[in-house]
Amino acid sequence: MYGDFPLDGQGQPGVLPTPSGSAAPATANRLVIVLFSGTIDRLMSASIIATGAAAMGMDVEIFLTNWGALAFRKDDYHANRRVSASFADYQSYLLEQMAAKNVTSWMENLEGAKEIGNVHITACSHTMTLFDLTLEDLEPIVDEVIGVAAFLERARDSAMTLYI
Amino acid sequence: MYGDFPLDGQGQPGVLPTPSGSAAPATANRLVIVLFSGTIDRLMSASIIATGAAAMGMDVEIFLTNWGALAFRKDDYHANRRVSASFADYQSYLLEQMAAKNVTSWMENLEGAKEIGNVHITACSHTMTLFDLTLEDLEPIVDEVIGVAAFLERARDSAMTLYI
Amino acid sequence: MYGDFPLDGQGQPGVLPTPSGSAAPATANRLVIVLFSGTIDRLMSASIIATGAAAMGMDVEIFLTNWGALAFRKDDYHANRRVSASFADYQSYLLEQMAAKNVTSWMENLEGAKEIGNVHITACSHTMTLFDLTLEDLEPIVDEVIGVAAFLERARDSAMTLYI
Repeated sequence: MYGDFPLDGQGQPGVLPTPSGSAAPATANRLVIVLFSGTIDRLMSASIIATGAAAMGMDVEIFLTNWGALAFRKDDYHANRRVSASFADYQSYLLEQMAAKNVTSWMENLEGAKEIGNVHITACSHTMTLFDLTLEDLEPIVDEVIGVAAFLERARDSAMTLYI
Repeated sequence: MYGDFPLDGQGQPGVLPTPSGSAAPATANRLVIVLFSGTIDRLMSASIIATGAAAMGMDVEIFLTNWGALAFRKDDYHANRRVSASFADYQSYLLEQMAAKNVTSWMENLEGAKEIGNVHITACSHTMTLFDLTLEDLEPIVDEVIGVAAFLERARDSAMTLYI
Repeated sequence: MYGDFPLDGQGQPGVLPTPSGSAAPATANRLVIVLFSGTIDRLMSASIIATGAAAMGMDVEIFLTNWGALAFRKDDYHANRRVSASFADYQSYLLEQMAAKNVTSWMENLEGAKEIGNVHITACSHTMTLFDLTLEDLEPIVDEVIGVAAFLERARDSAMTLYI
């Protein structure tokens, strides 16, 4: 199942590939985010962390899965007012405060992060198949569709991987 | 409280234990997942990442806490249709698509991962006490009950730790 | 936006600062938690992991964002009975079991962790601005308000970063 996707990113230049089962390569200056959720509170949080990392010169890799991939369907973000169900009673307050403070949207944050740094956004091939989506169905900010193996290759030598 | 659980896994062979407060040992080629949630969308996500890691030769350690431990109670998974409440409106669609695509269940994924790689599944002793559970109450795929200290020993030198 | 916050914690003593884009510094014996959620099941989980890490001599850094910051507003924790919405049907059972087992509260756990180890709790400046909060509005256990850049500096050379 995962053999379909070529492995890539074998560590940094000059570092030999890691044989299976032995020590992982040294950590690279890279932030990886698995973006599983599609609520605006978590999307906003992910976009702010990604922007900060890009501003600091870190490489940023965002891997969209499940509801995170659905949130990047074309034009979906314009109407997305979904807030974590555990805090549904705060939805109106959150939206009001975001409007009052002129907070830029999570999509604008990610567009800005791409302009200032090395930000790569991918969608999980398994999710795309499950939901009958192709890359053309997603916002142009998404660079490509990759498999779990390719994601893990990029994540396992990263400085930090967050599951959001 | 944590003194009850023996520490284990002091890094890799040949690497000296780390004195408290100093640098952590070099990272091992290991994925650690704290499986806190018990919804099938997150269980599926965790099982797919674990399978991919096992196929790549990474050691995989899954630590079940709270709702994640409850999801592994004997026979519970047969009837589990719980989906993240934030996406409750997608529950029917998700289940239909999973059936239409003949997606293997998260439990079957984990069983397959155990066959091809080094996958170790543990349950949090604190959660087990809280919910009056013993190892015998859980599916046989769960290897043992461990404490937080033992989990942290395995996680702190891992290539990646995901809280799902 | 992130330029407002001074960078700090450039790795360990004797390790040179990392130029942008190159390898990250070696990992320090530090656990970082991004505490995004404010439900008691996740707050309890975070507090138990933090306590275990402090007992093992790891430095612990907790970064409060969004609902996590709201959960630390003064006196809020006394009345907080919020449980993950995906497991709302277990709320009564969870509260009953916690009472029956005399489980210490997550706030008491964090106070205890601070007594035995090096535990630093910060609140995200972006969240504080969004919700019109200042440090004085939060419980005294919170040490300071910091920006995303300062958080990332501390997280990127850590042994483990969990997004809860």
